[in-house]
Amino acid sequence: MPHMPDTTTTLAVLKEAMRQFVAERNWEPFHSPKNLSMGAAVEAAELMEHFLWVDNETSRQVAGDPEKLAEIADEMADVACYLLALSNVLAIDLTEAILAKLAKNAIKYPAEKYRGRFRLDE
Amino acid sequence: MPHMPDTTTTLAVLKEAMRQFVAERNWEPFHSPKNLSMGAAVEAAELMEHFLWVDNETSRQVAGDPEKLAEIADEMADVACYLLALSNVLAIDLTEAILAKLAKNAIKYPAEKYRGRFRLDE
Amino acid sequence: MPHMPDTTTTLAVLKEAMRQFVAERNWEPFHSPKNLSMGAAVEAAELMEHFLWVDNETSRQVAGDPEKLAEIADEMADVACYLLALSNVLAIDLTEAILAKLAKNAIKYPAEKYRGRFRLDE
Amino acid sequence: MPHMPDTTTTLAVLKEAMRQFVAERNWEPFHSPKNLSMGAAVEAAELMEHFLWVDNETSRQVAGDPEKLAEIADEMADVACYLLALSNVLAIDLTEAILAKLAKNAIKYPAEKYRGRFRLDE
Repeated sequence: MPHMPDTTTTLAVLKEAMRQFVAERNWEPFHSPKNLSMGAAVEAAELMEHFLWVDNETSRQVAGDPEKLAEIADEMADVACYLLALSNVLAIDLTEAILAKLAKNAIKYPAEKYRGRFRLDE
Repeated sequence: MPHMPDTTTTLAVLKEAMRQFVAERNWEPFHSPKNLSMGAAVEAAELMEHFLWVDNETSRQVAGDPEKLAEIADEMADVACYLLALSNVLAIDLTEAILAKLAKNAIKYPAEKYRGRFRLDE
Repeated sequence: MPHMPDTTTTLAVLKEAMRQFVAERNWEPFHSPKNLSMGAAVEAAELMEHFLWVDNETSRQVAGDPEKLAEIADEMADVACYLLALSNVLAIDLTEAILAKLAKNAIKYPAEKYRGRFRLDE
Repeated sequence: MPHMPDTTTTLAVLKEAMRQFVAERNWEPFHSPKNLSMGAAVEAAELMEHFLWVDNETSRQVAGDPEKLAEIADEMADVACYLLALSNVLAIDLTEAILAKLAKNAIKYPAEKYRGRFRLDE
C-alpha cells in the first residue's frame, strides 16, 4: 500500500476506497442510511468506551501510549468509514458539509465572546 | 469561501481548519479525548435520530429530499468535526487509520465468502 | 436468590441492590453523573448493535430465539443498571420521572390525533 | 395522579403504563426491537449531552440544582421508557435481567479484588 497520509489524501479518494470495499461484497442492500447511521453511533460508543472511567485530564495521557493510541485510531476509523459510506449512499460532499458547519459555528460562537468558555452564562 | 469539494480537499486541510476554529476560541482545555469522544457519540445519535422511526427502505428516500439531505449533511459534519478535533489532539493520521482499517476488514471479510451477506451463518 | 420478578419488585429494591454492589467495591468515586451517563450510552449502543443489520420486521424475530433473547436482556440490564446508579447518585425517583414523562407525552401526543402515526404531517 | 414513588411501584406497573400508552396510539407497528433500541441510544445520548463539557466533579453539582435535576430526570425517563417498551415487545422480565446481571458482575468483579479500582492492572 502506498504511503497515503492526511496531507495528500482527499476525502474523494477515501470515499472511493469505501465504495469499492462495499461493491466487492455486494453490501449495498445493507447500507441504508438508517443502518449506516446506527453503525456510526455504535462505533462512536466503542470509541467513547475507551475513556469511560477516566477523568478528562487522564484521558489526554493516551497521546503518549502507542498501543492505546492504535486502538483509538482504529475506533475512529470505524466511525469515519460509516460517514464515508453514508456520504456515498446520499451523494453528500462531506468536505463542503464540514466547512459549511465551521462557517456556521464561527457565527454562532463569535471568538471574542466565547474565548475560553463554551457557554455565555458562566 | 472558495469552492473546496471532496475531490480536491485533503484531510490535513480540514484538520487545520478545525484546529484554527478551536484555537481562536481557546477551547483546547475543553477538548480532552474523553469530551471529544462524547461529542462524537452525541452527534452520531442526533444523526441517527433522523432515521429513528422509518424502515430501511424509507430511509433511502432522503436522497431525494434536498431539505432533509441538508439536515443530514449538517449532522454528519458535526460527527466529522469531533473526529478531526480528536485527530488533532492525539496527533492521529486519520487517513492512514481509515486505510489500515479497510485493509484489515478486507482480510476479515473476504469478498468471495461475504458477498451479499454480513454473517457466514446465514 | 429468591424469585423476584417484575410483578413484585419495586424500583427502590433494585436501586438498593445497585447501591450495595457499588458500596461493596468503593466505586462511588467513579460514579459521577458524567461517567454514569456515558456508561448508559455505551450499553445502549451495545444493545442496538444486536439489531444493526436487520430490518425492523426481522428484529422482531428475536422474541422467538431464547439464546438471542438472553443476550438482549443482558444488554438491557446493563443500561438499566446505569440508570439505577444515576438515580442513586442524584437522589432521583425514577418511577415518578417515568410516570411524569408518560403524562407529559399523553398531552404532547393526543391519542386521537396520533393514532397509527408518529408525525402529523404524514 | 396518585403518588407512586420508587418505594411502592413495581416494574410490572410501569410496563403496563407504557403498554397502555402505546396501545392507545396504535404505535405497536413502530415498536420493533430495532427501533426501540435506537430510541434508547438516542435518549441516552441526550442524557449524556448534559454532561458533555464538564469535569466529573462538576457533573456531581447537578445534584444541588433542582432545575437541571428535573431535566436530567426527564432524559432518564426517556431511556427507561424505551427499556420498558422493549421489555413489553420481547416479554422480558427486566427485574430478573437486572438481578441476574448484578449476580454475574459480583462474580466478575470480586469485591476484595476490585475495591476502589475498576481494573486490576492499575
